[in-house]
Amino acid sequence: MHKTFKAIGRVTLLGAGPGDLELLTLKAARSLAAADVLLLDDLVDPAIAELAPRARVVRVGKRGGCKSTPQDFIQRLMRRYAQRGEQVVRAKGGEALLFGRAGEEIAYLRAHGIEVDIVNGVSAAFAAAASLRVSLTQRGLSHGLTLATAHLQDGSEPDWRALAAAGTTLAIYMGMSRIDSLCAALADCLPADTPAAAVQWAGTEREARVLSSLGRLAEDARAAGLGSPAVLLIGEALREAAREFAGAEARAANG
Amino acid sequence: MHKTFKAIGRVTLLGAGPGDLELLTLKAARSLAAADVLLLDDLVDPAIAELAPRARVVRVGKRGGCKSTPQDFIQRLMRRYAQRGEQVVRAKGGEALLFGRAGEEIAYLRAHGIEVDIVNGVSAAFAAAASLRVSLTQRGLSHGLTLATAHLQDGSEPDWRALAAAGTTLAIYMGMSRIDSLCAALADCLPADTPAAAVQWAGTEREARVLSSLGRLAEDARAAGLGSPAVLLIGEALREAAREFAGAEARAANG
Repeated sequence: MHKTFKAIGRVTLLGAGPGDLELLTLKAARSLAAADVLLLDDLVDPAIAELAPRARVVRVGKRGGCKSTPQDFIQRLMRRYAQRGEQVVRAKGGEALLFGRAGEEIAYLRAHGIEVDIVNGVSAAFAAAASLRVSLTQRGLSHGLTLATAHLQDGSEPDWRALAAAGTTLAIYMGMSRIDSLCAALADCLPADTPAAAVQWAGTEREARVLSSLGRLAEDARAAGLGSPAVLLIGEALREAAREFAGAEARAANG
Repeated sequence: MHKTFKAIGRVTLLGAGPGDLELLTLKAARSLAAADVLLLDDLVDPAIAELAPRARVVRVGKRGGCKSTPQDFIQRLMRRYAQRGEQVVRAKGGEALLFGRAGEEIAYLRAHGIEVDIVNGVSAAFAAAASLRVSLTQRGLSHGLTLATAHLQDGSEPDWRALAAAGTTLAIYMGMSRIDSLCAALADCLPADTPAAAVQWAGTEREARVLSSLGRLAEDARAAGLGSPAVLLIGEALREAAREFAGAEARAANG
């Protein structure tokens, strides 16, 4: 049989979840098994490559805070491989369609006639809640969840007052480097005793966490030595978990 | 060897994802394989039972809108099986810790000395975005995502004005039965041409969707015959996808 059309590859934007490779979806595992090229972000466990035995692995991490990020370079790389007919998987930490510049990548690839598939993943806020064994919504206390980043494109912070006024549980990404100012801003709108937690490397073996209150979270997270990457959870839905933790700590102290 | 303690089971609250069983995590598949008892919600595909070959399957669905729900009954059932030493998996649609009364279940089981494990899942909003191939956040347009339910515990609606003011992309669950009033309320705070979509049965073979604007979403969703369960996505982050859809429709009409 003759091939009359040039073979063209596809790009899969794949949410690799919060770190534990067991939180990959079955669909993600299938995509990885078929990958010719695997582009890996910093926050993705390199062991994911074991699930992509055929793939050439290219690390394309860009640490937050760098002045110039290779976003254009990554996009050109995906395009080049796909145009050679290869199956390209770009693995991103967490969920593929949240805080990961997927919008720019989809627009770029489509503009070049390249098909894009999406494979969802578990975002860190959910893994953090699983670690704390706390529901992110709670009837009568919190009817929703807001996932927000502490760093906007222009370097500014979001409108914390407006986010707090939404009455939802807050999950704040990339907040550790400005945890003092953001907790202070939120404490202008929410009671200082609102339950609040920080979970670093949620859902991995390196996980570390504190469960505290909005008024004390920054201090407690610092005392516990927490750093990035971490997600902050703030809201009344955490009240029950906070009580459990306080009870367990008291039992440990007395026992 | 003598067993000196009574064997006690555990309960796993498992997020079964939006419908496509391929969106289960590897961890979920492992939990299901080890389950003695599988409690199944309405929104979970019964085919999930094939992944739990050892398990007795108990359907515990409760359709929204029923006056009395068997929540107490479900909790007692989990407790009874766990206290017999069985591994109980309670499969919930979507993510285990969002809109699923997991908080009540965790508190109840802990009060009875039963260990609870959580396995995260993919929530419908993310599957809907994957279907539309749109990022839920977009630098310079939307710095976050708010997941909210249209039905509060007391039958009222959330404060749509406060949610709109947060400046995040909105994902509204259980909104189809009041899509007119909620779109009207949001249109008081957001431009009527804000991109808006409704996706029913996101990520399944039955999926149906419309991509429209806030001002026309209710009418367009009705014209397309959409019903529950569906998630509504509203926000400027969808602008690019809306443009793609309009282009594709125009090409289809002309071609």
